[in-house]
Amino acid sequence: MRHEFPVTKTTTPKAKPDSDTLAFGNRFTDHMFLMDYSQERGWYDGRIVPYGPICLDPAASVFHYGQELFEGLKAYKTSAGNVQLFRPEKNEERTKRGCERICIPPLPDGIMVEAVKALVDVERDWIPDKPNTSLYIRPFIIATEPFLGVRDAYNYMFIVILSPVGPYYKEGLSPTRIFVEDKYVRSVKGGTGEVKVGGNYAVGLRSEKNAHEKGYAQVLWLDGIERRYVEEIGTSNAFFVIDGEVVTAPLTGTILPGITRDSVMTLLRSWGITVSERRLSIEDLYEAHRAGRLSEVFASGTAAVISPVGELCWGDKQMIINEKCIGTLSQKLYDELTGIQYGRIEDRFGWITKVE
Amino acid sequence: MRHEFPVTKTTTPKAKPDSDTLAFGNRFTDHMFLMDYSQERGWYDGRIVPYGPICLDPAASVFHYGQELFEGLKAYKTSAGNVQLFRPEKNEERTKRGCERICIPPLPDGIMVEAVKALVDVERDWIPDKPNTSLYIRPFIIATEPFLGVRDAYNYMFIVILSPVGPYYKEGLSPTRIFVEDKYVRSVKGGTGEVKVGGNYAVGLRSEKNAHEKGYAQVLWLDGIERRYVEEIGTSNAFFVIDGEVVTAPLTGTILPGITRDSVMTLLRSWGITVSERRLSIEDLYEAHRAGRLSEVFASGTAAVISPVGELCWGDKQMIINEKCIGTLSQKLYDELTGIQYGRIEDRFGWITKVE
Repeated sequence: MRHEFPVTKTTTPKAKPDSDTLAFGNRFTDHMFLMDYSQERGWYDGRIVPYGPICLDPAASVFHYGQELFEGLKAYKTSAGNVQLFRPEKNEERTKRGCERICIPPLPDGIMVEAVKALVDVERDWIPDKPNTSLYIRPFIIATEPFLGVRDAYNYMFIVILSPVGPYYKEGLSPTRIFVEDKYVRSVKGGTGEVKVGGNYAVGLRSEKNAHEKGYAQVLWLDGIERRYVEEIGTSNAFFVIDGEVVTAPLTGTILPGITRDSVMTLLRSWGITVSERRLSIEDLYEAHRAGRLSEVFASGTAAVISPVGELCWGDKQMIINEKCIGTLSQKLYDELTGIQYGRIEDRFGWITKVE
Repeated sequence: MRHEFPVTKTTTPKAKPDSDTLAFGNRFTDHMFLMDYSQERGWYDGRIVPYGPICLDPAASVFHYGQELFEGLKAYKTSAGNVQLFRPEKNEERTKRGCERICIPPLPDGIMVEAVKALVDVERDWIPDKPNTSLYIRPFIIATEPFLGVRDAYNYMFIVILSPVGPYYKEGLSPTRIFVEDKYVRSVKGGTGEVKVGGNYAVGLRSEKNAHEKGYAQVLWLDGIERRYVEEIGTSNAFFVIDGEVVTAPLTGTILPGITRDSVMTLLRSWGITVSERRLSIEDLYEAHRAGRLSEVFASGTAAVISPVGELCWGDKQMIINEKCIGTLSQKLYDELTGIQYGRIEDRFGWITKVE
């Protein structure tokens, strides 16, 4: 399937930012993708237009009831000048599950990937080419019907915007300090923790802010029922290397099924390393640390790819991980993933989609 | 404290709807209240302007991370033509707690009530005066900063809009059929279930839709940990009358501290009726029903005030409540609350704020 979307070009292109000063998610390109939904027409009028404000009735339900979901992926420029995406079909699959969960009508099959490819193609010159820079892609869907009754809306917009971004860590990979959250809970089985809906992020803002104020980069979430089992780190998936086994939380409805998480597991297994999706209690983690069996902790996500953890603070207990140095596996995974993403390493898993 | 907000009047006033055909939350008045927040200025520029679109950058964080919260209350026209609000200071208090929970900078003390009063005063002619009609008031705060990093935003808008509404049940009070939700969970301790943030409502849309498709009006939520204890009904608080004792879920972080809930408890206690805020399992509720000790079930909220329940479906078990008739307490609470709200009954608890 190949969709042709009409393109309205901007008449006032912006100056492109200096690739050396790029941060994350604060600069946007000249165009965006829009598509509307109504009950009568379904999803219609996919189009590329100049980047600009979204004007909604103040009663639009996205402002009140959080009926919104998003995705995140990146476009990479290879040294040969090609443009490529990393597993974009996985974002589309996850969106479909998120739509089902919060009653957003599903996008037609293939539309998200085609919209992303079409928009990235139009904005090709915006993709930075300095090492570890990329074009961050944010597809999202919002409920736009102006109605204050609490029900799924009858109108929606699907939007894609693009943001040129620098390396997540300016100084390269650097182990972070993480606070084990014991007061607040991110999600519980039966909720929305496994899909990328807005409420999952609002719920974590207070914890993150408290952690920052104490000098930590992020929190490690524990499960919402027993408050014992490790789940995510901030908005990333979490991995723990114990006695050479790599442990991560299972997909039982409370954590996001990260695409980087899945890629990490695939790579580790291809290297003959044991990966276990199983519950791991904070007590067992602490015991493994005390016994010298915990060799690495890292988070995985689209923005930072791999983020090694140097320290975990659990109440009055402190765990220094790998002498606050980047672990061997963390570094190898980062190099391999970014190598594949930027086309420096062969794509042996079929993860790359080229933007022609 | 008395704030003066500048008013810009619309030049194109809308026709006012027929009071007999009013529904809920789909018609809006001619003006709205707006106020902005920036880190440099704090909350500033409170103003009343013509009702119209809110235009935001597509990267505005409200579209992505659900950093939004709202309130709901009503303005009532008395038979003498006076306009009054019901406990608006309680909405302001709850907003303060919600802001704290999801890191929105708190509004200055008194601003919400003053904004509501000023806007209602401007829109005085929009308040319908047929029985059980009112002007629904929706204050809300949204994060507007165009930034894709996950953190609390640096910019916000506080908005108030108004919607003339008809009686919630056109045919008068009418017992509803309720489905006991056993798959999905609304909230868990440590989350955001006790504040009015958007994510609490998105999480419930799927359950509500499934219930509607099965012929039920709403769901009865059970707690997220043991999946046993009754919590809310849809987006309302739930009450159960067992052996003459009125039982409702305690405020332990998972349910909304409803203003109608609080008013119901105050009225019941003033009538010498025992009210218990305690955990009640669905098994115990069913046993009470079987033993003929469950005499009434009702929900309380701003929109419907009191909504009697005629039937509860729990798996393969069905509970018919009070022969599907409106219970004595339900009717008495409805009459008393609406009597106070419309000025027909003396305001002996100091619940009424007049809009002069």
